[in-house]
Amino acid sequence: MRSAFDPTLYLVTDTALSRPRTVPDVVRAAVAGGVTAVQVRDKDASRRELYELTLAVRAVLPPGVALFVNDAVDVALLAGADGVHVGQDDLPPAEVRALIGPDRLLGLSAGSPAEMAAALALPPGTVDVVGIGPVWSTATKPDAGAALGPAGVAALGARARAAGLVSVAIGGIDAGNAAALGAVDGVCVVSAICAAADPAAAARGLRAVVAR
Amino acid sequence: MRSAFDPTLYLVTDTALSRPRTVPDVVRAAVAGGVTAVQVRDKDASRRELYELTLAVRAVLPPGVALFVNDAVDVALLAGADGVHVGQDDLPPAEVRALIGPDRLLGLSAGSPAEMAAALALPPGTVDVVGIGPVWSTATKPDAGAALGPAGVAALGARARAAGLVSVAIGGIDAGNAAALGAVDGVCVVSAICAAADPAAAARGLRAVVAR
Repeated sequence: MRSAFDPTLYLVTDTALSRPRTVPDVVRAAVAGGVTAVQVRDKDASRRELYELTLAVRAVLPPGVALFVNDAVDVALLAGADGVHVGQDDLPPAEVRALIGPDRLLGLSAGSPAEMAAALALPPGTVDVVGIGPVWSTATKPDAGAALGPAGVAALGARARAAGLVSVAIGGIDAGNAAALGAVDGVCVVSAICAAADPAAAARGLRAVVAR
Repeated sequence: MRSAFDPTLYLVTDTALSRPRTVPDVVRAAVAGGVTAVQVRDKDASRRELYELTLAVRAVLPPGVALFVNDAVDVALLAGADGVHVGQDDLPPAEVRALIGPDRLLGLSAGSPAEMAAALALPPGTVDVVGIGPVWSTATKPDAGAALGPAGVAALGARARAAGLVSVAIGGIDAGNAAALGAVDGVCVVSAICAAADPAAAARGLRAVVAR
């Protein structure tokens, strides 16, 4: 059975922004502050480094906090992650679903109406969660598409919701702007937690805005 | 059952060196000239690009020419490759074997006596082929270790052979120097074929030296 997953406050890790702390240290603090799901992302890491990082993050996660791996399906399988998240340049979602089997979660990025339509056209059960963004432009992911703004996110989120998919917004979200987001089931943050002096406090501040 | 595999002349692809030709075009010509195995390697490609490239290479390979994918176990599985090749920074060999199952081939790079000892210490059946190099220093892989020279390769190749593993030499090999290599079962080339004006002729020239 596919893992349950609470998307309310979804942390995507950034190794560089976490320094001088380790990513597992930031994750541990963030989860104590209220993060409900974690995606390990490190586009600069070798596969071996990513595998070791994923194992280290997994070791600090309490039960009930879902662990995703960005892009690397092989790492997700080996590390026993709950799911994989793929972008538009990663392996295609139907192929990823074939590799991960029926029990793991699959997330897919969608940054435009066309990408959302493609996600919704996949066979039911292929994708579980759609990452909608960027809401606002961000230095964390300079290759991301044009900013959608809260209204653009809400429009895509409503389509995902109507199709029964979980949706999360991503891109430039922090405690000061998260309340502007509607029609999504959760928010993803990177720098708002990884670059925070106190990741636990940052997570608590976000949960105060996005708690449901 | 694990695929048979002829390591005599093993081409590792390089997308940049192949330009303006496509990698599949170079592979087709190289196989016509006598290449016996092909590894798709492109460290700059996204996973989706690597998957599409691997499918395109697979489509031009005749039966009997084994197809390996460098590093990306997920791509190798999805593309139906015969095997995976991993370096020391990629996923660990025992983990890769667990993912690919018993029927696919697994290659591992070894560039020093210590790395060869580690490869030979793995459970039997984990690794099938050891890539020994660099023989000579090469611009194709600037992160490779110190050049072993033909004597260093022969020493490592003899250890692999004694353990029943297939061995191939890699790094700076061309038709002018390949005859210096002993105690290995094949030679890997990158630029000697990918950068050649006539890849088929380049492969024929290499086969004239390394044919057995």
